[in-house]
Amino acid sequence: MDELKLAGANSCPLTPLGFLERAATVYGDCKSIIYNSITYNWSETHRRCLQLASSIQSLGIRKGDVVSVFAPNIPAMYELQFAVPMSGAVLNNINTRLDSRTISLLFRHCQSKLIFVDCQSSSLILKSISLFPSNSLRPILVLIEDDSAEIESPIPTHDFISTYEDLVKKGDPYFNWVRPITDFDPIVLNYTSGTTSSPKGVVHSHRGIFLMTVDSLIDWAVPKQPIYLWTLPMFHANGWCYPWGIAALGGVNICLRKFDAASIFDSINLHNVTHMCGAPVVLNMLSNGKPLRKPIHILTAGAPPPSAVLFRTEALGFVVSHGYGLTETAGLVVSCAWKAKWNRLPAEDRARMKARQGVGTLLSTAVDVVDPLTGKSVKRDGLTLGEVVIRGGSVMLGYFRDPIGTSKCMKDGWFYTGDVAVMEEDGYLSIKDRSKDVIISGGENISSVEVESVLYTIPAVNEAAVVARPDEFWGETPCAFVSLKEGMMMTEKEVVEYCRERMARFMVPKTVVFKEELPKTSTGKIQKFVLRDEARALSLGPRKKSNM
Amino acid sequence: MDELKLAGANSCPLTPLGFLERAATVYGDCKSIIYNSITYNWSETHRRCLQLASSIQSLGIRKGDVVSVFAPNIPAMYELQFAVPMSGAVLNNINTRLDSRTISLLFRHCQSKLIFVDCQSSSLILKSISLFPSNSLRPILVLIEDDSAEIESPIPTHDFISTYEDLVKKGDPYFNWVRPITDFDPIVLNYTSGTTSSPKGVVHSHRGIFLMTVDSLIDWAVPKQPIYLWTLPMFHANGWCYPWGIAALGGVNICLRKFDAASIFDSINLHNVTHMCGAPVVLNMLSNGKPLRKPIHILTAGAPPPSAVLFRTEALGFVVSHGYGLTETAGLVVSCAWKAKWNRLPAEDRARMKARQGVGTLLSTAVDVVDPLTGKSVKRDGLTLGEVVIRGGSVMLGYFRDPIGTSKCMKDGWFYTGDVAVMEEDGYLSIKDRSKDVIISGGENISSVEVESVLYTIPAVNEAAVVARPDEFWGETPCAFVSLKEGMMMTEKEVVEYCRERMARFMVPKTVVFKEELPKTSTGKIQKFVLRDEARALSLGPRKKSNM
Repeated sequence: MDELKLAGANSCPLTPLGFLERAATVYGDCKSIIYNSITYNWSETHRRCLQLASSIQSLGIRKGDVVSVFAPNIPAMYELQFAVPMSGAVLNNINTRLDSRTISLLFRHCQSKLIFVDCQSSSLILKSISLFPSNSLRPILVLIEDDSAEIESPIPTHDFISTYEDLVKKGDPYFNWVRPITDFDPIVLNYTSGTTSSPKGVVHSHRGIFLMTVDSLIDWAVPKQPIYLWTLPMFHANGWCYPWGIAALGGVNICLRKFDAASIFDSINLHNVTHMCGAPVVLNMLSNGKPLRKPIHILTAGAPPPSAVLFRTEALGFVVSHGYGLTETAGLVVSCAWKAKWNRLPAEDRARMKARQGVGTLLSTAVDVVDPLTGKSVKRDGLTLGEVVIRGGSVMLGYFRDPIGTSKCMKDGWFYTGDVAVMEEDGYLSIKDRSKDVIISGGENISSVEVESVLYTIPAVNEAAVVARPDEFWGETPCAFVSLKEGMMMTEKEVVEYCRERMARFMVPKTVVFKEELPKTSTGKIQKFVLRDEARALSLGPRKKSNM
Repeated sequence: MDELKLAGANSCPLTPLGFLERAATVYGDCKSIIYNSITYNWSETHRRCLQLASSIQSLGIRKGDVVSVFAPNIPAMYELQFAVPMSGAVLNNINTRLDSRTISLLFRHCQSKLIFVDCQSSSLILKSISLFPSNSLRPILVLIEDDSAEIESPIPTHDFISTYEDLVKKGDPYFNWVRPITDFDPIVLNYTSGTTSSPKGVVHSHRGIFLMTVDSLIDWAVPKQPIYLWTLPMFHANGWCYPWGIAALGGVNICLRKFDAASIFDSINLHNVTHMCGAPVVLNMLSNGKPLRKPIHILTAGAPPPSAVLFRTEALGFVVSHGYGLTETAGLVVSCAWKAKWNRLPAEDRARMKARQGVGTLLSTAVDVVDPLTGKSVKRDGLTLGEVVIRGGSVMLGYFRDPIGTSKCMKDGWFYTGDVAVMEEDGYLSIKDRSKDVIISGGENISSVEVESVLYTIPAVNEAAVVARPDEFWGETPCAFVSLKEGMMMTEKEVVEYCRERMARFMVPKTVVFKEELPKTSTGKIQKFVLRDEARALSLGPRKKSNM
């Protein structure tokens, strides 16, 4: 059958951008976005994105140029997930919690030609641009105004070539958007949020994002026209591809500039939210709330959720699904596919089952846990640690301008995640740690996550993180950082004793440090490298002393 | 970003075959297939398919060879949808209602190396093989036995190299199944059932079938673990890809060797069926049944369903979805995406809306209705006839060994369907006819479907089909073939008068022929070419007479 040739009709590149066109036809007069007093329907969102894409092109942006966006989960942020790639450019969302130095570095690394800037961040972005070397080309800036946002100081509007709404107004609503030429044309460039090392620019293709979008809808079984609350930042791996997914289903996007437990529950009640995503820290935030009137589906990922948090959240009426993915996989590629028979288990066992990351999603070609030296699958015994490797259509094309970084993790047909896990007998995997989060004490590997999950069962504990503390005798010992719930008290000795009763002796933290709050990335991941530095300082302290 | 290269991890070919592996992990102990007294779970189905694939390879079948299957909707038929392509071969399902001469032609056209033969069809297949030219290579045959099937005469088992179950038993359950090397490796070869011309061999790629499978699940919003009743023959466009789709969701396949209204309702009650597919003729069959205890989702396609039939079926509790596709698109690429606001319409308007084919599905890149001469979109006025054209990942690679046929329908980046439709103002299309089913009477185009839909509103009418009858004066006139419901009576004059009150004069059938049953293909499509011959004969008749 080799004589059959590919034709335009059968091999047109896959892309998630067409979902918007279809939403305008099928759901044209249904709500697309709600934000404070602003409401759009899908016809309007479709038209606005086309106008915007046309204006971006008019600004001189060409196919393959990088366009950056620096904004929270506001309507403009949602629209730009479509409009930037529709103009032919590569979309680069920037984490809004970064400092000006890092932001400046990222802009220069990706050679951004145009930056959309939220009004609350104008001075930060202008500062990051001022850090450019004097001879370097500067990106043009567009200001996203927002009547409902508080502005600290007047915005120097002359630094901006246009406002966002002016671009929308001027644009052509019949713009013929720029389709990819191959499946593998780049569509987004996302810098990893960096719990560990310096940020890397992850490039994804139209095909990859298309597959992840579709996969996420099937895996979470999202029905048509969901009401979706945007707590997960869109700048974090494109909100795991749900901007495109919600368009595919004609859902409603409830946008929030910022949120806390109160504003989440307000939105839930006001808009009848049906679905939301969030890191375990969001679950933790919600778990002290009131029981829901109607069940809400919440999808969590980004860190192994402590069973205790899962349990409390579900008790309120949240239907928790749990998955695992990385910026490099564009979204969740492993999910804890739930089995009906597990519903008959006692609550604690249920929570333990749900805390496992699970199995490859439908569209992941293969997921395995392997010995990183031999590349062979580890035993399915739930004990042998190995590295999680992934093969699938949503794995990144590679790191931008970092061939060494790319080749280090893309080998033998696999993407090596750097995450450490065990494979259980039933084929479900459990992440035990980031490679560099494993604590090696007296030759024994300690999973920091395992120790943390015990700490989370202490009623007084709000947050917990365990890292390696250098030790002359043991090499490393586990050092726990703990924040307590308001009004709760506990001593180091009590924590250690609690742990002694519940884990192997070598795993028990030798040090417990109490903090008001643990340092976190904007997406709620605890920044272990900060704590690791602190633990190291603790060990250096006495040594310095003895040198004195 | 051109420096980023494709790697094994990110560009592995898309294929639906991996869904089975995942089903075994996630749904291993859940039921996969039920057929009379036989029940399998997903672990068993996975193991049996691997064993079978391994045995197929052991029989000497190599990558790219064609393996044919001739069977009704029994468990073996389901397993072979996986096992044949897992062996590396191209799967060719043959329509079981064809005659030995046609079957023989198809076997030779596709150069089938191996044929799986249902026990009830052994003499038919042996006869078709006996029609091979004496010097040609003959395929090897495998016999599918079935204790619950009645056999008319003893099977000459020496003509078969093995039985199906022996192949399963002998096979390797750890077989490393043959993965496609590119997205576009062929996976199936389906001969069109031919309501019009001679059968054509439609070749689909792994990517195409993967996309159609996923698209069909999202478009119909099939939940996890559906209970699916197999009324739609799997030999018809691979049961629109649901064999792979049901595995993706870990559902239950209720198999039926043959069916009528009574056996469908029995299965529904016995197994708590949740989903089924069927041509409008199946809906018609069900529409005289009893109200359902629980709603059942039924997806119909293959012909525009008459509003009256839709209405009666829904009144019983079937939730009818309606779509449109062709063998060449691997399944439904257009669907009547339902809008909530239509629920408020009067019942007749609702049925009229649902009878429209609709809009491109999520994964169809583009669907349009164009002037076949200029290629330009027709006016969105619901009146201007044009040809339906499609572009999307599930469009066939082409017709096997028919470059002229392929190039005729694949042009300018579109697949030309040969179906005639109008585009309505809201972007939904309505099929009016197959190109060759349009009746041209006195220069006026008459949509046979439009006349038929009026005939179906006559309470006494069971089935209706309208074709062109040659006419010396008018060129053609509409000729109606009608079957009446049991015990109902009607005259030609009454039918004509009924029509006169409800349509333009030139559209009213000039001839009405009553038949006990209309000739149909195995998939329930009325064979208009048979009726067209009959209508032609009617016109020749009188002329002959006058020559006498």
